[in-house]
Amino acid sequence: MKILVGYRGTNVGKVLLELAVEHAKAFAGEVALVTSLAGGEKTHQKQIVEAEKNLDEAKRYLDQFGIKNESHLLVRGKTPGEDIVDFAAENSCYEILIGVKSRSKVGKILFGSTAQFVILKAKCPVLSVK
Amino acid sequence: MKILVGYRGTNVGKVLLELAVEHAKAFAGEVALVTSLAGGEKTHQKQIVEAEKNLDEAKRYLDQFGIKNESHLLVRGKTPGEDIVDFAAENSCYEILIGVKSRSKVGKILFGSTAQFVILKAKCPVLSVK
Repeated sequence: MKILVGYRGTNVGKVLLELAVEHAKAFAGEVALVTSLAGGEKTHQKQIVEAEKNLDEAKRYLDQFGIKNESHLLVRGKTPGEDIVDFAAENSCYEILIGVKSRSKVGKILFGSTAQFVILKAKCPVLSVK
Repeated sequence: MKILVGYRGTNVGKVLLELAVEHAKAFAGEVALVTSLAGGEKTHQKQIVEAEKNLDEAKRYLDQFGIKNESHLLVRGKTPGEDIVDFAAENSCYEILIGVKSRSKVGKILFGSTAQFVILKAKCPVLSVK
């Protein structure tokens, strides 16, 4: 069973990884870490380097617990929501783990648009954390 | 570990129950079925009878699989979202399972307001299904 973790390396990332470990153990599954960047003019080289660093850290965290895992930095012109939903479908993922909180430019906590898209469009159950 | 299932006995209910069985087995947990009705003038006796019938059916389904379970028909003047979030906090639930799709009066599929509330307000992870 493959568990997709929509990973952005933010504060919520630690909670997502803890939960991914619990679920991978409970379902004898493996974890696919997925980070999505738009690519082209919308993505700076710095963001790619940062995303790779975050994925490496997440991989080391999962390795510590003996959880089989793989990392995917998707840069193929899709929105993060589309990338996550499509990756889950293409890989027959059992479930998707995502963070739902997003902060607006004025600091207000919002229901992230990527999370809303994934929850409504994914074919598998979506586990959301804050 | 207690797994809360926000149960309304609709089409999505079967998928929620199947998932509840999988999760209760994987985490050696038990299931709390929760249906919330507003109460007072907003709730007809017919709705209460219907909700009790649905909960009984769900209980029998879980019993078949040997899953320890309990049913709660909450009629205490709260919205379903508040009831689910509060019950999960009061009972230290490990996770909440809910259906996210709702149908508008003109038949359009929407992101249910109860699900949105629960996903943003619950202290535990929320697993959403369609």
